[in-house]
Amino acid sequence: MTATSTTFDPAAYGIAPGAAGDIVATQPGGRHETDIAVIGAGPVGLFSVFEAGMLKLKTHVIDALPHVGGQCSAMYPEKPIYDIPGWPKIEAQALIDQLAAQAAPFDPVWHLGQQVTDLSRDEATGDWIVGTDKGTQIQAKAVLIAAGVGAFGPNRPPLAGIEAYEERAVFYRVARKEAFRGKRVVIAGGGDSALDWAIELADIASAIMVIHRRPKFRGAPESVAKLHALAAQGKIDLVVPYQLHGLEGDPETGRLDVVTVADLDGNIRRLEADVLLPFFGLSMNLGPILTWGLALDQNHITVEQATMSTSLPGIFAIGDIARYPHKLKLILSGFAEAASATHAAREICRPGEVMHFEYSTTKGVPGA
Amino acid sequence: MTATSTTFDPAAYGIAPGAAGDIVATQPGGRHETDIAVIGAGPVGLFSVFEAGMLKLKTHVIDALPHVGGQCSAMYPEKPIYDIPGWPKIEAQALIDQLAAQAAPFDPVWHLGQQVTDLSRDEATGDWIVGTDKGTQIQAKAVLIAAGVGAFGPNRPPLAGIEAYEERAVFYRVARKEAFRGKRVVIAGGGDSALDWAIELADIASAIMVIHRRPKFRGAPESVAKLHALAAQGKIDLVVPYQLHGLEGDPETGRLDVVTVADLDGNIRRLEADVLLPFFGLSMNLGPILTWGLALDQNHITVEQATMSTSLPGIFAIGDIARYPHKLKLILSGFAEAASATHAAREICRPGEVMHFEYSTTKGVPGA
Repeated sequence: MTATSTTFDPAAYGIAPGAAGDIVATQPGGRHETDIAVIGAGPVGLFSVFEAGMLKLKTHVIDALPHVGGQCSAMYPEKPIYDIPGWPKIEAQALIDQLAAQAAPFDPVWHLGQQVTDLSRDEATGDWIVGTDKGTQIQAKAVLIAAGVGAFGPNRPPLAGIEAYEERAVFYRVARKEAFRGKRVVIAGGGDSALDWAIELADIASAIMVIHRRPKFRGAPESVAKLHALAAQGKIDLVVPYQLHGLEGDPETGRLDVVTVADLDGNIRRLEADVLLPFFGLSMNLGPILTWGLALDQNHITVEQATMSTSLPGIFAIGDIARYPHKLKLILSGFAEAASATHAAREICRPGEVMHFEYSTTKGVPGA
Repeated sequence: MTATSTTFDPAAYGIAPGAAGDIVATQPGGRHETDIAVIGAGPVGLFSVFEAGMLKLKTHVIDALPHVGGQCSAMYPEKPIYDIPGWPKIEAQALIDQLAAQAAPFDPVWHLGQQVTDLSRDEATGDWIVGTDKGTQIQAKAVLIAAGVGAFGPNRPPLAGIEAYEERAVFYRVARKEAFRGKRVVIAGGGDSALDWAIELADIASAIMVIHRRPKFRGAPESVAKLHALAAQGKIDLVVPYQLHGLEGDPETGRLDVVTVADLDGNIRRLEADVLLPFFGLSMNLGPILTWGLALDQNHITVEQATMSTSLPGIFAIGDIARYPHKLKLILSGFAEAASATHAAREICRPGEVMHFEYSTTKGVPGA
């Protein structure tokens, strides 16, 4: 991730901050029935909830991340995007907030922090059943795979009890720089993300300690130079070569007091800190989806562009995971694919029903 | 057109009013050379200027209307649209303003108020030449037809010298209701547009006179009832059965003083008025485009969905005018088609050049 400085002000565009943050995930487990199971809550998955809703189809959405927004929210929330039609400039998280607000009137059910594992067919009804690693089962007439690069997540450092601190004092992404104002921040890692955020937060945090197991940092030479300059000014404390060793604090409240680090000889050093930001890269995993018997093309799902149908009836793939001749991996292409797929899915969900196609200008949306 | 009341406030979204209004049309005539000639300046044509720009291709845009925005601006500028991805609600003209602002950095040349007439091939270069009814010739390596329902315009009442008052005191559309505050307004026509705008402007104009050649109005029964109720309250003056007869005022400045009307026996009545709004429907005319030798399907241009190519090499069609199996006539589909077509056009404009595909987040746009 490259940190970006930008003058974009979401408030100036009337974007309600946190529209995506208002989404409440449902409890894992149980069996659910719906029209369409949407796999992936990135921008394309979110928009397909809206498109399905306009066709009066109900949706359940599954995502491995604990929040909606996919890569936009997890990897570059503050980065401006320029090629969303009708938005000369919009930050990735602001786009997600807009899409979440647009999907909200259709009241989808969110299964977040759950990874899809298996797909099977219900013999009695012909419906599909999508299972997750948390034991949830969703029975749906159609499945839309909008899984992007697959389930992905940060590589978690092997520290005992780290889960208790995650999203409270340990963060794998910076959603909002201001959240770290006046905090003592430990950043772990030697790549661009670690460098960029150390530099970005140098004037915001009360202390920045950068842990790296080697004295030499990877990353853009300009960033490395800047890091050393800030270290020389005493604004950043380089703790090298050290590795993360443990966390001390209150696992109940998630309050962090100390990050312990060890050098190569096992000598321990205690760093008083409020926050740990580990940046050890991301793992991406299409995993189970690749074993579902779908026709594939180099780790992408082969579809017919006109309907976005895969080789299995009732299963559609859209967005970056889908492949057809001349496919462009653009968010805006995914939006149109969402429209195509939901219209095709409608014929499966409501066979034989005549559609009275209306424009949004004619009928509006619920509650509008 | 159904008039809509709405709480949408473009300012709350930070939309700069008039971005589309800042566009200056170039002088008609002359011969121009460019990468892509875009026919149609509706939302899809506008977005293709942006997409072409991102691929470093220059564009010239031709539209029969004197302004950009196509139907959005000409037919329902204040109507909210709900299905633009990332915009839970946006008024049609606000969307056009956003798209115009998004296209602006790429500095297209606008040929407005000109209708395309002929298409020919330059033997020497293999380029296409698009001609207009104003004698303009645009030589381009590729042509993008984003002409929607074709060149369309209001049916103009046969009043001597009306051209001098058009867009000054005679308007075929209501771009902004507030422009008519305190004005004496003559509305001519008996259909929904006439009814809706008479009702909408009843509290804004200082006087509303509705001219119709029959005493009975067409249009939604609810609107007809409302019109008669407002007439009973003295808020609307029904001048029926009368027909428009002439205009009096200053053709130099475009100031209107009097609209004269005639009954069926030819008796003239003089109505003091500042503004005339004639609503006699729209004429749509794909006209010349249908004679260019393109493969057609029921007045639509047949394309291959993957590249939006027509039956003629280097000619692409996108948006509502294009047809392929399972085509959805949605603005958002047109946006994705614009991306597909410009990418395909790039191979014609820059043959053999390797494209270093980059995301907008990586390189941004000029001046951003």
